[in-house]
Amino acid sequence: MKASQFFISTLKEAPADAEIASHQLMMRAGMIKKLGAGIYNYMPMGLRVVRKVEAIVREEMNKAGAIEMSMPVIQPAELWQETGRFEQMGPELLRIKDRHGRDFVVQPTSEEVITDVIRQDIRSYKQLPKNFYQIQTKFRDERRPRFGLMRGREFIMKDAYSFDRSPEAAKASYKNMAQAYRRIFDRFGLRYRAVAADSGAIGGDLSEEFQVIASTGEDAIVYCPQSDYAANMEKAEALAPSQPRLEPSLALTKTATPDKSTCADVAALLDMPLSATVKSLVLATDQLGEDGSIAKSTVWLLLLRGDHDMNEIKVGKIPGLDKSFRFATLTEIEEHFGCKPGYLGPFNLLKPVTLLVDRDVAVMADWVCGANVEGFHMTGVNWGRDLPEPALVADLRNAVVGDASPDGKGELAIERGIEVGHVFYLGTKYSRAMNATFLGDNGKPQFFEMGCYGIGITRLPAAAIEQNHDERGIIWPDAIAPFTVVLCPISPDRFPDVKTASDQLYADLLAAGVDVILDDRNERPGAMFADWELIGIPHRVTIGDRGLKDGHIEYQHRRDSASSQIASGEALAFLKTKLGLA
Amino acid sequence: MKASQFFISTLKEAPADAEIASHQLMMRAGMIKKLGAGIYNYMPMGLRVVRKVEAIVREEMNKAGAIEMSMPVIQPAELWQETGRFEQMGPELLRIKDRHGRDFVVQPTSEEVITDVIRQDIRSYKQLPKNFYQIQTKFRDERRPRFGLMRGREFIMKDAYSFDRSPEAAKASYKNMAQAYRRIFDRFGLRYRAVAADSGAIGGDLSEEFQVIASTGEDAIVYCPQSDYAANMEKAEALAPSQPRLEPSLALTKTATPDKSTCADVAALLDMPLSATVKSLVLATDQLGEDGSIAKSTVWLLLLRGDHDMNEIKVGKIPGLDKSFRFATLTEIEEHFGCKPGYLGPFNLLKPVTLLVDRDVAVMADWVCGANVEGFHMTGVNWGRDLPEPALVADLRNAVVGDASPDGKGELAIERGIEVGHVFYLGTKYSRAMNATFLGDNGKPQFFEMGCYGIGITRLPAAAIEQNHDERGIIWPDAIAPFTVVLCPISPDRFPDVKTASDQLYADLLAAGVDVILDDRNERPGAMFADWELIGIPHRVTIGDRGLKDGHIEYQHRRDSASSQIASGEALAFLKTKLGLA
Repeated sequence: MKASQFFISTLKEAPADAEIASHQLMMRAGMIKKLGAGIYNYMPMGLRVVRKVEAIVREEMNKAGAIEMSMPVIQPAELWQETGRFEQMGPELLRIKDRHGRDFVVQPTSEEVITDVIRQDIRSYKQLPKNFYQIQTKFRDERRPRFGLMRGREFIMKDAYSFDRSPEAAKASYKNMAQAYRRIFDRFGLRYRAVAADSGAIGGDLSEEFQVIASTGEDAIVYCPQSDYAANMEKAEALAPSQPRLEPSLALTKTATPDKSTCADVAALLDMPLSATVKSLVLATDQLGEDGSIAKSTVWLLLLRGDHDMNEIKVGKIPGLDKSFRFATLTEIEEHFGCKPGYLGPFNLLKPVTLLVDRDVAVMADWVCGANVEGFHMTGVNWGRDLPEPALVADLRNAVVGDASPDGKGELAIERGIEVGHVFYLGTKYSRAMNATFLGDNGKPQFFEMGCYGIGITRLPAAAIEQNHDERGIIWPDAIAPFTVVLCPISPDRFPDVKTASDQLYADLLAAGVDVILDDRNERPGAMFADWELIGIPHRVTIGDRGLKDGHIEYQHRRDSASSQIASGEALAFLKTKLGLA
Repeated sequence: MKASQFFISTLKEAPADAEIASHQLMMRAGMIKKLGAGIYNYMPMGLRVVRKVEAIVREEMNKAGAIEMSMPVIQPAELWQETGRFEQMGPELLRIKDRHGRDFVVQPTSEEVITDVIRQDIRSYKQLPKNFYQIQTKFRDERRPRFGLMRGREFIMKDAYSFDRSPEAAKASYKNMAQAYRRIFDRFGLRYRAVAADSGAIGGDLSEEFQVIASTGEDAIVYCPQSDYAANMEKAEALAPSQPRLEPSLALTKTATPDKSTCADVAALLDMPLSATVKSLVLATDQLGEDGSIAKSTVWLLLLRGDHDMNEIKVGKIPGLDKSFRFATLTEIEEHFGCKPGYLGPFNLLKPVTLLVDRDVAVMADWVCGANVEGFHMTGVNWGRDLPEPALVADLRNAVVGDASPDGKGELAIERGIEVGHVFYLGTKYSRAMNATFLGDNGKPQFFEMGCYGIGITRLPAAAIEQNHDERGIIWPDAIAPFTVVLCPISPDRFPDVKTASDQLYADLLAAGVDVILDDRNERPGAMFADWELIGIPHRVTIGDRGLKDGHIEYQHRRDSASSQIASGEALAFLKTKLGLA
């Protein structure tokens, strides 16, 4: 490609609403252009990146035996009503009425449609397994679209769906996809982690997220540097402490802590570590009567160490709290504790509550908690002496740095990531809802066992930039760069030898299959280099008259701080080696 | 590809709502699957065709210097309000409200969005010309979606938009695209015509449709077998007859024609050719007053030969009738003619009307028309004697077979076609509406000169099938076939030599870059052949045990009525020659 035949439109300044590096740099590099909130044009430079991401995903999906098809962007509501998602999903599901007043949705994913196709077209276990995928436009009507392609409304996703005859076969399909995803992410050339994720009601450990590592990532990734263990924060287990509980050494005391309603304030006042305090969280669950109204509510008191955070996913898996818990109302709290939040604890309750204790709290001695009297905390609290031994003990908290790794092989570390892929074993959730069956080898109808597998095609470039950029601009990995090599001739209009040499190298690189762009715009070197550094082309070759006379050209990788001289005659061979072509 | 790894799902019967061959065959061959009215899944077999069409279009657009980008499917209404299309377009424009109640549309085309991009990003004539294209999902909410992909609601279109500094430069861009379209349609391997089309208010002849010839086509194409002339019916000129008008030979007579209110009935009653009769069409135009209400209406009487049809596009270009004409109301007709329709004519008018005469009528002698008295016609009518010589004479009718070709090189013929592409010079229609300007070389802002260029990516396969099918199924041209070659081993499970030979040929063809599918499903030959003939793979190779023992395999092109024997050792070379690879 010659730059004069392409469209390059860089900006000095990022627009004010671009808050993160990838959004700012994609706008400045002319890769995307905002059309509306969370809706972007993919400009020619940006589309090249998207197409390269697509091509890698397509190749590896095909190699893994998945079959490409394409489902409509605009889908009739009927199928979504069959699974209940039409009603269950919030306003992020964009709903449409057509000219006849019929309901439609703009697809955010396509479980319903693929299940509908399969229940019509696959009749026998002999036709299984099958895995179908599409690379298609999706829409999610985010309340606050932001961060450019990171959290847009319209986006491109690769979504795949596997259909199998048994849970075992479905798990094999899942594993096949999990491996294909590793190959895909390896090829992108990004640092990433495949992390165990929560698989919700289905259970098991067949859910993994593919996270691109970036300090600006929205997700916390918990991993063990000494082993392969990695999970997202929702999933990462906090093991029970291995040290036994210490013997009590302090007397139980009601201690005045006026205006100190947080653990941190209390710890500071009492000159204790925050980890010696215990916080009280009050939850409630409702039982519904036959008419659907609330027949009975149960109040729960959760105790967590002052320096730990509750993990809602883990709490939601405790029998009795399963998913439907809520925070207790102020009225419920006062009714049971006789006190306002800030000084709550397990002492002197007005009405019984269900006590649920985090594993770490269960092994504490001489701890501090609220006294259920405003302005007072209890200090020197000890299980067995001041309170009965806890009956319900569980992992209720987020993992923290230094926790023992669940695989027993070291200590946990935490870094941040951007979720760009997800593989998920679905079981029969959708096939049951849509009565999608095949005839098993016993001649009886069985529900399809399903898995679903997504990659955020347009999110990936943003994640790549969050991971790879500097003050000058983007730094693309070779595999997804809009162009792999840029040739920058200096004043080719004045120096015919520069024009000849750069045209020749351009032709040679094209012939070698290199995705090269020749900057024939006759820009000044400074402006030219600034453009390409902003755009982030990994390999730059500068061809100048003085260098040519000395027999060399200049090469600079986008990560290099300076250029190096390469003998003109060696340029092609040098670049082929750099690009892994020789 | 091996068939066992792919998804083949053929049907014996087409669904009842599939009315035309392409719809029936795409459904039966498992290429598409209906999701809702006018909304289809592209199944794996069908998507391969779509992707091949896309690839050819993309390659040739790139070669022609167009630059690929991608605009959103869901577009904010604001830009559509700027050009007025948000209000002007009917319910075929699918409108959406998002969660905040803001208006959006699903793009049917993208003139507004690309013009918005360009008015921001192109500032100087030095950046011109530019041509941007996208291959993207579109939606048109047809009242009666039907014929499968031929008139669907959701479809994929390639739309390109050129931007130029002057009408001359824009016309050069237009010509460049018109040539690229010829290369694209040549590569598809279909019989097609590029026909002149009406360019509306812009005038000139810079509008061409690319029509795939098919007897089932919705459009009539007028062409000259002796020359290059081709136009669509709206556009094709009916020249003035070259023969002079004959002298009057009959007396003007008021003739009773009771209950004969059509030209055909009158001609039959009077035993005359239909071409000796003249029909009267009454139109009206309205002038609006300052308050927008109708201030004054003008009634027009159009005279056309009884065997000719009015061409609304041509009539709409007559000064005074320009586009805003309507058919006169019954009240207007009775007020001016004193008679009901069926016996109308230019005689004995109660109020004056504007008389507009078709070129053919102007040279008629001794003709017949209504007498403006119910049950009577005038016969022996002659210009100059019974009526003044006509003042307004124009081409008002559709061309018919046998008309002289407008290029003077022969007689016109008519065939039917399916419009799959359109190139159009837009002028400044959109740039003016959206105030999109650049700085000209005189330093002054100028409106961009635009062109737009579409190809119906998903309509093309349907058009290809309308042109190329037989009672057994589809017949794909090589370039867009889902697979170019199918290998059909007969009972490879029983005959190891069959399996070995077909596996080897499969590997050899793959290595030669041939898009081949090996049918390893172990189907019976009859079912296997029926599937591939329905699906329409152009080249089939059958490998059987008996043939192998005799040293041959069987080859059959989809258009052949029988197979021919090829020496086994020559199979690869034979196929490479057939496919133009050797």
